[in-house]
Amino acid sequence: MKFENCLSFALLLCVGIVVITLTAPRHLVASESLAPQTHTINVADFGVIPGGKDCTRELKNALAACRAKGAKRLVFPKGQYHFLPDHADEAYLFVSNNDEGLKRMAFPLFGFEDLTIDGQGSEFIFHGFLNPFVVQDASKITFENFSVDFDRTFHSEGVILAVDNEGMNVRFSEQFPYKVSKGLLTFVAHENENGPLTSVSKGDIYGSGHLLEFDTAKRETAFMAKDYFFNGTLSYPAKDLGGRVVRLMIPKLAGKIGNTMVFGPNHRNYPGFIITRSSDVSFENITLHHSGGMGILGQLSHNIRVNNCKVTPSHGRMLSTTADATHFVNCTGYIRLTNNLFENQKDDATNIHGIYVQVAEILAPNEILVQLKHRQQHGFDFLSPKVEVEFVRGKSMITFGTATVTKAVRENKEFTRVTFDKPLPKELVVGDALAALRDYPEVTIAGNTIRNNRARGMLLNCRGKTVVENNYFHTPGAAILFEGDSFFWFEQGGVRDCVIRNNVFENCLFGVWGKAVIDVKAGIREDKDKSRYNRNILIENNTFKAFDDYTLLLAYCVDGLTWRNNKVEKTTAYPASGTPSKRFDISYSDNVVIDGEVFKDASN
Amino acid sequence: MKFENCLSFALLLCVGIVVITLTAPRHLVASESLAPQTHTINVADFGVIPGGKDCTRELKNALAACRAKGAKRLVFPKGQYHFLPDHADEAYLFVSNNDEGLKRMAFPLFGFEDLTIDGQGSEFIFHGFLNPFVVQDASKITFENFSVDFDRTFHSEGVILAVDNEGMNVRFSEQFPYKVSKGLLTFVAHENENGPLTSVSKGDIYGSGHLLEFDTAKRETAFMAKDYFFNGTLSYPAKDLGGRVVRLMIPKLAGKIGNTMVFGPNHRNYPGFIITRSSDVSFENITLHHSGGMGILGQLSHNIRVNNCKVTPSHGRMLSTTADATHFVNCTGYIRLTNNLFENQKDDATNIHGIYVQVAEILAPNEILVQLKHRQQHGFDFLSPKVEVEFVRGKSMITFGTATVTKAVRENKEFTRVTFDKPLPKELVVGDALAALRDYPEVTIAGNTIRNNRARGMLLNCRGKTVVENNYFHTPGAAILFEGDSFFWFEQGGVRDCVIRNNVFENCLFGVWGKAVIDVKAGIREDKDKSRYNRNILIENNTFKAFDDYTLLLAYCVDGLTWRNNKVEKTTAYPASGTPSKRFDISYSDNVVIDGEVFKDASN
Repeated sequence: MKFENCLSFALLLCVGIVVITLTAPRHLVASESLAPQTHTINVADFGVIPGGKDCTRELKNALAACRAKGAKRLVFPKGQYHFLPDHADEAYLFVSNNDEGLKRMAFPLFGFEDLTIDGQGSEFIFHGFLNPFVVQDASKITFENFSVDFDRTFHSEGVILAVDNEGMNVRFSEQFPYKVSKGLLTFVAHENENGPLTSVSKGDIYGSGHLLEFDTAKRETAFMAKDYFFNGTLSYPAKDLGGRVVRLMIPKLAGKIGNTMVFGPNHRNYPGFIITRSSDVSFENITLHHSGGMGILGQLSHNIRVNNCKVTPSHGRMLSTTADATHFVNCTGYIRLTNNLFENQKDDATNIHGIYVQVAEILAPNEILVQLKHRQQHGFDFLSPKVEVEFVRGKSMITFGTATVTKAVRENKEFTRVTFDKPLPKELVVGDALAALRDYPEVTIAGNTIRNNRARGMLLNCRGKTVVENNYFHTPGAAILFEGDSFFWFEQGGVRDCVIRNNVFENCLFGVWGKAVIDVKAGIREDKDKSRYNRNILIENNTFKAFDDYTLLLAYCVDGLTWRNNKVEKTTAYPASGTPSKRFDISYSDNVVIDGEVFKDASN
Repeated sequence: MKFENCLSFALLLCVGIVVITLTAPRHLVASESLAPQTHTINVADFGVIPGGKDCTRELKNALAACRAKGAKRLVFPKGQYHFLPDHADEAYLFVSNNDEGLKRMAFPLFGFEDLTIDGQGSEFIFHGFLNPFVVQDASKITFENFSVDFDRTFHSEGVILAVDNEGMNVRFSEQFPYKVSKGLLTFVAHENENGPLTSVSKGDIYGSGHLLEFDTAKRETAFMAKDYFFNGTLSYPAKDLGGRVVRLMIPKLAGKIGNTMVFGPNHRNYPGFIITRSSDVSFENITLHHSGGMGILGQLSHNIRVNNCKVTPSHGRMLSTTADATHFVNCTGYIRLTNNLFENQKDDATNIHGIYVQVAEILAPNEILVQLKHRQQHGFDFLSPKVEVEFVRGKSMITFGTATVTKAVRENKEFTRVTFDKPLPKELVVGDALAALRDYPEVTIAGNTIRNNRARGMLLNCRGKTVVENNYFHTPGAAILFEGDSFFWFEQGGVRDCVIRNNVFENCLFGVWGKAVIDVKAGIREDKDKSRYNRNILIENNTFKAFDDYTLLLAYCVDGLTWRNNKVEKTTAYPASGTPSKRFDISYSDNVVIDGEVFKDASN
């Protein structure tokens, strides 16, 4: 027996578990040959019943019936349904900006076409280490009328009782089980379960690696609270003081007595909805109380709509999802976020961007080795034959050429060898980046309320027409951020046509995550005089309510920005800094018009 | 588009990475149709050169050439070769008694037949998070004449400088990089590298979760030292005292000044050699200085020989491999461990056993749902059509029936639905166990030196003829342990014909891991009067050098054991306890003959 390629041989032996890697989008179109069907399946007919029992296995049967019968609706009689990971399907998934892994999935919607899941007002409660929804290689999928929550959240919260220079005392409610042992505080699934400790014990640990203070009364991140990142831990040095009070033995923590310390997870393993290589996915009247990662993550997908949904905590908690409410990577078609409430998530309300890979090695005149640099982009294989790419100078972010992929051979989740249809631009060097040119989505963000979350509101990094209107923002960082860089996050951005109008920005910048309410940045470190990354931005008819003389607009390396008819109102909601900033902080930009006047950019 | 089964659809989309699950053994037999070849390939011809550069990619080309040309030898000119994970192949591997995961592999020997890798005295140094050798679905693979080490070990070691009731001060050499930050000690790859801390930072953390004191002078586990297991951590509460001295803020640690505290990894991700579904694999003159998991792990494989090899630390370290030196699971044919040195590994020298699954649900008269209970056995899919199994009562471990598998459908890595050729025994209940009946290997363990490691020497849990002769044991726990249970480790054992002769057991039991030098146990909690798990054991012509009046032989639920012509010598190597134990501790056993006399078992 001989094998040309050991890996393809090994592939033959794959059984039982499924590994999914990300390749270029594949848009399924409803087959004309199928007879039209409107069949509805009721989960009750499959033993999926409210109450307390695990419905995962019965749900699998109901989904199989949908598939077999071509049913277009799966309905849940109103009730509270529980899903456990024990008997769930499993697949290795790469999920951009979240954590990859072998995941159990309650709703594995692989390859479905035209299916609506209607909760009819039900609550879906997920237990343990379980991924709620995965939509993959599917089309026309609608989620409506249900809420999503977890029995035990992936984060924990404790009320601050005392603080000094050596540590902090916090009290945990019974909602957040924990243990203190051998000087370490560890969050767990259940406090009363403990097998014998051995060389292979693991237990159901809820690892944590981030602290952030919330204002308990205002139910938002505390005024100017800072992130405490713990690199490489999942527990904290601590002493048990009894009565559910724990002393964190961490020097120099800041926090106000009565406020809530939020202990964020050290992973993003369990996003709420993962949408991969799918098209026409809609969310209508969905409430997402919690997920261990982002709320909705769309990647390599076409046409996603989120309307009349809520990301909001339950059970009096400060935090909803433990990362962004929504996030879209290398998507196409349209993205519509309308009439939603995004609050208390532990990161931005949305971010719509592409991905850059870095040139690691030039192998031949038309062949390079590229690397996915960001750990949470590993396995994001968007390079495949026929994909057109742009070549971007690493430090200036200037595009200097394009080509079409003819062959892509993956070394592993990090490195891929890519061959092109023509010789590469002569100026290409190691450290440059490349991204896919594609049908950039049209983005509509309208009628949403974004508030009380960590960090920013909307990250607009999409070259399709982008309209942001009639939204209400109350974010501790920038309400709207434009970025894109090819050295740290490796996110492709650069708007081409963006309108921001009729929004209310109320007392933004009460935290540490931004320098301007609307912050138009880019990771440009060279050729600032020439590089113009974001273009054609119109900001009009907005109301800025501001408690401080902070910067309303920052623009860096922009070509074409008009600011007109915006209203500014002074408030006293938070303490003012006393040191006024420039209202408009414009540098290295062309064609900027502020209230009718062409801005003279002295930095040019 | 419709799909009978969403998973088989998803499987079609697998690209680029390989997922391997474990199924029943497949023994490759050299194909008669191939022309005999003796071609040798020299790695130097492919740019694999000693020095310091990463040879991983060039090695891949050399291995591809071996495959293409049917070469039978791959030789390395003597030198020091380095392998990095960056460009290594990747596969998701389930590795019994170690940790599963998506692994980078330096030597991915998938599907090879008849290949010898001859290092000619070379040193192979592996860097970072890399699995050195994976032999899978291969046959006639020989490793000879090289050593294996890691640039940065997965464990760390610190010399104890001071101890009190609140903590312990230890000094780390530069060999073990670490950081102390926010009250936590974390081991790292390099002390001087640190990117910005963000919501997605990870860094190259060398997680640790186990402490064990070693006697620095004697280079063995300290006298009666105890394990400190840390469930669910990867760092320790600590203060940096400067000068590479760290104070562990962990109460009640014991340790002698000058001794070495070994910080074991919190995983078994990087075993040295993984052998899966392969046959005729030999090791000759291999030195294994380190691995992040077991040294050699054979599973579902046929005929493995380890001769004239060493597991031993380098660079003055106390620890070699961070788990067992060797370990064999559901193997067949023969296992021969001859003329080896196994020292300073952080667990037993070997363990040869099968795996039990637990009956989780009875689905039909001939169908059950079974569960792999032990986390490090997940994905061990040994149940497939034609496999004959025994049914075992959970608490008594009495076998009460057999049947043959006709169908096995995996729910996930943990649960499988199994259908049999006939109705299951009527007495079968949830909680019972089942294991594969198979061609149990003949085991030869001869001429080895086993010393200074944590825990035990040899774990004999194999029903094939087992001969243990001419070995030297100096182990802190039992030198030879027989076990098997179906409630915690789920390891199938039960010898049927075992000879232990001409061995020297010198000052064993200087630690906490055993109650007798030869300890014949089983996890039997019911029907002790009837259950006889280990059978036909002959112990003769051995020498026991003992520093204490401890138990030489413990036998529990044994049928047939003869002890004859063994010599006992008294030593003063360690402090005696002062409380003599029974020399022979026999209970619930039949046909036990000690020095010619039938032992009357009062417990029966």
